Amino acid sequence: MTMLTIALPKGALLEETIRRFQAVGIDFSAFQDSSNRQLQIEDPSGRTRGLLVRAQDVPVYVEYGQAQLGIVGYDVLREKHPQVAHLADLSFGDCRLSVAVKADSPYRSALDLPPHSRVASKFINCARDYFQDIDLPVDIVPLYGSVELGPITGMSEAIVDLVSTGRTLRENNLMELEVLYHSTARLIAHPLSYRLNVDGLGNVIEALRQSSLVPASVN
Amino acid sequence: MTMLTIALPKGALLEETIRRFQAVGIDFSAFQDSSNRQLQIEDPSGRTRGLLVRAQDVPVYVEYGQAQLGIVGYDVLREKHPQVAHLADLSFGDCRLSVAVKADSPYRSALDLPPHSRVASKFINCARDYFQDIDLPVDIVPLYGSVELGPITGMSEAIVDLVSTGRTLRENNLMELEVLYHSTARLIAHPLSYRLNVDGLGNVIEALRQSSLVPASVN
Repeated sequence: MTMLTIALPKGALLEETIRRFQAVGIDFSAFQDSSNRQLQIEDPSGRTRGLLVRAQDVPVYVEYGQAQLGIVGYDVLREKHPQVAHLADLSFGDCRLSVAVKADSPYRSALDLPPHSRVASKFINCARDYFQDIDLPVDIVPLYGSVELGPITGMSEAIVDLVSTGRTLRENNLMELEVLYHSTARLIAHPLSYRLNVDGLGNVIEALRQSSLVPASVN
Repeated sequence: MTMLTIALPKGALLEETIRRFQAVGIDFSAFQDSSNRQLQIEDPSGRTRGLLVRAQDVPVYVEYGQAQLGIVGYDVLREKHPQVAHLADLSFGDCRLSVAVKADSPYRSALDLPPHSRVASKFINCARDYFQDIDLPVDIVPLYGSVELGPITGMSEAIVDLVSTGRTLRENNLMELEVLYHSTARLIAHPLSYRLNVDGLGNVIEALRQSSLVPASVN
C-alpha cells in the first residue's frame, strides 16, 4: 500500500487548508513553521504525505497521480482545465475574477470598452473566453504579476484579475466593472485513485466534506 | 516630449540593475527601500521613470512600448521570443538552463533518458526545443515553482531549470546532466523608440554599454 499524498497550495489558501486537514486528523502544520524548508512532509501519524506547491501546480500533481488529493482555488481550475475529479466546494478563500478599469474612465460595463482594447491579465484563457462570449474583440496582454500596472502605465484599458477585499483596486484607483465568476477553495482528486478508493481516499474525502459543512467560526 | 521609461526586473537581477543605472546617473534606489510599495517611480532628476515588474513581464512592457528600455535575463528572451531589440549583454546575473536528474539515477547524458520520460520545467518552450533537437520524445510537465519536486516525488524523470550556484540541486540530491545555454542580464529596447532615438534613449544605452565594460569589482 502506497502512502496517501495530498497537494497543498502555497499562499492565501494555505492556512485554512491546514486547518481543514487538522479537523479530520491530518496534521500538516509543520508547513507553517518559519524554519521549515521542506516541500514534502509526512503527517506525524505516518499515514499521509503533504506536498507544498504553487497553487497553479496543485492540479498538475493531482492530474499526474503524484498526489491523490489536492486543494486549489476554482480560478485555477477554470483557467487550466486540468483532468482531475472536482469533488467539493470547501467554501473558503472567497474571491472573484473581475474586469476593472481606471476609476476615472467613462466605462460603466465591459461592453463600453472600445473594440480592440488591451486587457492585461494573468488569466488569459478566462479573459479570452469572457470577451468572446460578449462578442467584443480585445487584445489580451499576458502578465505574470502586478496586473494593476497595466491601466496605470496606460499599457491596457482594462484588466481581468482576482479581487478579494478590493483593496488593491482602490489603492490603484481602479474600478470593478464586471464579475466573470466567483471562486472558492475546491477539493480535487486523481480520477482513477478516486474511483478505486486507494489508500482510504474515500474516508478522507467524506470527512473533509462533513467538516466543510461546519461554519468556520465554530471550529 | 514624453518621459523615458525603464522596466526593471524584480528578483535576483534587481540589485545590480539599480547599480548599473546609478553608474550612468539614473537613481532607482527607492525601489530597494523596504517601505516602498510603489511599482512606478521617477528618478529624482525627474527625467526618467522606472517600472518594477516581474522578470517575465519586462519584455511585455517593452514590446508594447510602455517602457522604452528594460533589463531582463536571456532565459526570459529565449523562452518567450518577445518582439524587442536586444542591445547588449550586461555580463551579470550568470546562470544556466540545465537538464538535471536524481543523483542516484543511471543517466549520464540527456540521451540516456528513456523515450517518453517526463521532464518538469518552467521553461516549456526551451525544454521542448532542446529535446526535439536531440530527437528524444519526452512529455514536458509545466510547473510554476519548485521544479525540483518533480524527480523527488517521482512525477518526472528529469527537470529543465535555471542553475546558478547549484545549491538547490545539491540540497535536493539532483545532478546536472546537460547545459542548454548560459544566461546573463540583457539590455532590451522597444524597436521603434530605439530607431527614432526618442527621449535621448541612445545616450542612456551608450552609457550603460560603456559601464558594463568596467569589471563589477572596480565599481
